[in-house]
Amino acid sequence: MEFEIKNKDSKSKARTGLLKTQHGMIETPAFIGCATKGVVKGMTFPELQKIGTQTIIVNAFHMYLRPGLEIIRRLGGLHKYINWSKPIFTDSGGFQAMSTRFYCKIKENGIEYKNPYDGQRYIITPEKSMEIQHKLGADIIMIFDECPRYGLDYKYYEKSLELTLNWAKICKKLHNSTDQTLIGIIQGGTFLDLRKKSVEKMLEIDFPGYALGGLCVGEPKEVMYKVLDHTVPLLPKDKTIHLMGVGTPQDILEAVERGVDLFDSVFPTKTGGHGGCYTHKGLKRFDNLTGLNETTPIDPDCSCYTCKNYSSSFVTHLFKDNEIVGKRLIIIHNLTFLMNLMKNIRTAINNNEFTEFKEAFLKRYLRENKGSN
Amino acid sequence: MEFEIKNKDSKSKARTGLLKTQHGMIETPAFIGCATKGVVKGMTFPELQKIGTQTIIVNAFHMYLRPGLEIIRRLGGLHKYINWSKPIFTDSGGFQAMSTRFYCKIKENGIEYKNPYDGQRYIITPEKSMEIQHKLGADIIMIFDECPRYGLDYKYYEKSLELTLNWAKICKKLHNSTDQTLIGIIQGGTFLDLRKKSVEKMLEIDFPGYALGGLCVGEPKEVMYKVLDHTVPLLPKDKTIHLMGVGTPQDILEAVERGVDLFDSVFPTKTGGHGGCYTHKGLKRFDNLTGLNETTPIDPDCSCYTCKNYSSSFVTHLFKDNEIVGKRLIIIHNLTFLMNLMKNIRTAINNNEFTEFKEAFLKRYLRENKGSN
Repeated sequence: MEFEIKNKDSKSKARTGLLKTQHGMIETPAFIGCATKGVVKGMTFPELQKIGTQTIIVNAFHMYLRPGLEIIRRLGGLHKYINWSKPIFTDSGGFQAMSTRFYCKIKENGIEYKNPYDGQRYIITPEKSMEIQHKLGADIIMIFDECPRYGLDYKYYEKSLELTLNWAKICKKLHNSTDQTLIGIIQGGTFLDLRKKSVEKMLEIDFPGYALGGLCVGEPKEVMYKVLDHTVPLLPKDKTIHLMGVGTPQDILEAVERGVDLFDSVFPTKTGGHGGCYTHKGLKRFDNLTGLNETTPIDPDCSCYTCKNYSSSFVTHLFKDNEIVGKRLIIIHNLTFLMNLMKNIRTAINNNEFTEFKEAFLKRYLRENKGSN
Repeated sequence: MEFEIKNKDSKSKARTGLLKTQHGMIETPAFIGCATKGVVKGMTFPELQKIGTQTIIVNAFHMYLRPGLEIIRRLGGLHKYINWSKPIFTDSGGFQAMSTRFYCKIKENGIEYKNPYDGQRYIITPEKSMEIQHKLGADIIMIFDECPRYGLDYKYYEKSLELTLNWAKICKKLHNSTDQTLIGIIQGGTFLDLRKKSVEKMLEIDFPGYALGGLCVGEPKEVMYKVLDHTVPLLPKDKTIHLMGVGTPQDILEAVERGVDLFDSVFPTKTGGHGGCYTHKGLKRFDNLTGLNETTPIDPDCSCYTCKNYSSSFVTHLFKDNEIVGKRLIIIHNLTFLMNLMKNIRTAINNNEFTEFKEAFLKRYLRENKGSN
């Protein structure tokens, strides 16, 4: 992986760049489509490409549980198995410890979990995570980390950070591939001294790029922005910074302004599946019947397939009757909206107009927004 | 509507034709996509067109209940509301009396039902059905009929047929549009004398085309074929014959051989949603994990998007994890399979090779088929 910075905004830390991987280029700032189990909810890969998706992130742990590594190997690796020839990230599986579905227990040597398919308890270690990610063969892979939720006490984050740092060393040691790039993950909750320590220690281990984990896990927006304010400047300027779990327009704009290059989040697809739509005037909901009499599209200023072809009435009708196409139309809209936002952000930075773009976007977005943003 | 017969098979009653409507031509024999609530399960309209879908059938009663006639009128009628510019059929709503969802009671003047959205009881009459179908503006509309299920006694079908004949007269009287074509429906259960009477009386009322209702509602295949053997020859040779509710390869081939021109059924999408796939070797199921280790596509002889791009393993993985794309890939396959079958049937008839085609197809299809066919 190579990362080249193209343009820097003069009034903020925003920047555009070009990330070169074995499977092609990624123009940054970029939103990475979340294909947790090998697919972005509701979307085929040609559809994703058509709306400007440059790369996806797959959860290595999920793919290991099912379909399993052997069948993926027999079909030629992850890219061929899911039939996506562009860059792929894999997440290590540490984030899954937050899911109650796996009844996880954190141990010194790894994370014990309950396999939902056979009900048995197993342990996933940094060694195992590296083995899985190497076998899957994604372009960019992640260290195995512990990702604690928001609201625990200082001591927990301190201890958790020690684990993540130990595991990071193991992962680094086991990673010799030049085809795959291993990324370090910064943890430390919302405690600025722990975040600082996390950065210092990760830089000692030395990775070609860094991700910020453990954010957007329940903390107030302002707290997340403060962590970014203090953490991003500590990271090397010539390496990619990936903010994991962030996918709302406001958070993306605030983070780009602070120097973040990469984002991934299930928010656009998850909220879409529940009837939540991005619009230029904030989040709009389709989980009630109020849209049924609206002749206008979801967002009259959107150029997506859904908005160009269907009324809010039709979308509401299908969504409320649980038709697959109802969810699809909303997800197509949300992802297109987000991909267009990223493109507009890159253009604004390249034109040295990012601050103005952000201000104009948020002025309209926040004024009428009643939902999450 | 105009119907022109193109070619007749010399060894059977199979024929190809061209059905001209206000919204374009339909080459017959044709399969009509079932868009009960305004959408074919899982598919957008451009996707349907791409795989060769020429026309769809929408349930007028469902569209009347929700989104309602007023919003459809405001958006320019049914074609514009759902954004499909090709021919549309509407079904009258009589078939819904079979659904337990509506707690229907058959009355002299119509069918009383419980509206699932407000819980109140209303009555739908032939007059109301005509009003709804006229307002929706589909190209081809249906008389309001009663469609009894299989297995009731002779007296029930006899009485039911009287109702349908009375309602057919009312519908015919109320229909003066030249933009829309009103089709008569033949009922009479599996009793050949009632089917004969139904045809005779419908011909007296006189419609530009006829549909066969009340078949494929639980009776054995052989019984349905026998009804076709006795009923189709009684109908005018120069008018379309539509067998409602039929959608398996075997039934379509048997009915085409007996002179049927049009088919509609939710089977390919409904069984697809439950993991059932057409293949040249019969129905294949994806509702268990056996496909997870299969590196081959659903049907190696199929040219659909799914079979050209994905292994059975990937389809199983997504379907079993309840991913929308899993259902989509199976539905795309089933509908493409069916549209290709219809195209091959038309080619075979035009080449006067239908009997040979049917025999070769069914030989392979029935030999290994373990499921429904």
